Amino acid sequence: MTPVPGLQVFAVEGIGEIRPGDDLAEVLAVALCEPGSTSCWLHDGDVLVVTQKVVSKAEGRIVDFDPEVPGAKEALVASESVRLLRRRGELLITETRHGFVCANAGIDLSNVDAGTAALLPVDPDLSARRIRAALGHRLGVEVAIIISDTFGRTWRNGVTDVAIGIAGIAGVVDLRGTPDATGRVLEATEVCVADEVAAAAELVMGKDRAVPVAVVRGVDPTWLRRGSVAGEIVRDPSGDLFR
Amino acid sequence: MTPVPGLQVFAVEGIGEIRPGDDLAEVLAVALCEPGSTSCWLHDGDVLVVTQKVVSKAEGRIVDFDPEVPGAKEALVASESVRLLRRRGELLITETRHGFVCANAGIDLSNVDAGTAALLPVDPDLSARRIRAALGHRLGVEVAIIISDTFGRTWRNGVTDVAIGIAGIAGVVDLRGTPDATGRVLEATEVCVADEVAAAAELVMGKDRAVPVAVVRGVDPTWLRRGSVAGEIVRDPSGDLFR
Repeated sequence: MTPVPGLQVFAVEGIGEIRPGDDLAEVLAVALCEPGSTSCWLHDGDVLVVTQKVVSKAEGRIVDFDPEVPGAKEALVASESVRLLRRRGELLITETRHGFVCANAGIDLSNVDAGTAALLPVDPDLSARRIRAALGHRLGVEVAIIISDTFGRTWRNGVTDVAIGIAGIAGVVDLRGTPDATGRVLEATEVCVADEVAAAAELVMGKDRAVPVAVVRGVDPTWLRRGSVAGEIVRDPSGDLFR
Repeated sequence: MTPVPGLQVFAVEGIGEIRPGDDLAEVLAVALCEPGSTSCWLHDGDVLVVTQKVVSKAEGRIVDFDPEVPGAKEALVASESVRLLRRRGELLITETRHGFVCANAGIDLSNVDAGTAALLPVDPDLSARRIRAALGHRLGVEVAIIISDTFGRTWRNGVTDVAIGIAGIAGVVDLRGTPDATGRVLEATEVCVADEVAAAAELVMGKDRAVPVAVVRGVDPTWLRRGSVAGEIVRDPSGDLFR
């Protein structure tokens, strides 16, 4: 038997350096469509996964930062955080204003110019909605957008990519109450499909993550609805056993 | 420009109910290869992701369990755990003998017969190595195996699939010390590719997860080496800030 591909993940190459003020939707359109052509490789229902770094750069979320200045990193992390959860040496685990719990408030020092740091977008769901609307306007396609970032996990080594902003795709798909194959009601079936799509995209982004965009084709069309990381994925502290 | 597919994820359908003592490698071979044919659809380098439940069933990790008996669940979870981390109502977060921190010691009541529960495999890395060796012997292919399970996350709603046992693929790929595109050394670059592949596979397993096996084709060939969840992914409590 020959299985059919349920999902395809494409690396989008040819995206150059992004600078503050760049129109990311235009950059994506140029990378994905033949210049001057009315046809475009993108399909309705495709999910574009865009790494946080290029979104932060395009939005000008770049600040001066000198890691040699004592206390500079702590001050910058504090300015982006609402709560410090843990600290070990250089590593600070904080809760950002978005409600993300991650290392160093998601501030990134790699793949940015020396003397600078990239902060997370102010409202990543809004960033995703803007890119989605601009691509729809420009290309006439209905795609979903996931802005991804790289987070650690509490009890597992290694980082994985997760969704920090989404548009046109569900964050969490609730299968509670769906009978399983034996007719019993499923347990623990709120699946965070947005994080799983972000993880799948990371696998093609290359060793040095020089590829900042991937397209995931073939996701369940019922997932393609209005979505929000802030509204669906960020766990409210009241439901949280480890804060 | 037309991107090329870096990764394809296939659902493997036609796998029937698995019973204790079933030869899972034979079941996979029958599902993936033409009967009586010497050719097989599987390629060297493919990653087979197999859900924990069918591995547990084949290995006979099924116990009698009556959820109506007071204290039955607590007793069963305790018997599979070395430590209780948190409890809220019905939900127990424990550390299993494998070192996994998850809900209810990974014990599963869905998609198993009424009156029973499925425990995690005793040694999921060994389970993966056995399936890999049997498929290699039977079909002459060098594939990787990931046994996946569905875990919650500390600060994010929704579950995602992760690797609990692996063979022939890295758990964590260490990119520390690799210069990024600007020549600076990357931070936080131990990527848990095994968990990302497990997450990608979950996306094609269907709403009721009736599809217990997926094939992921196209992973970076440098990841295809000896791997171990216990040795690479399980975080040692000494390096853990939240236990």
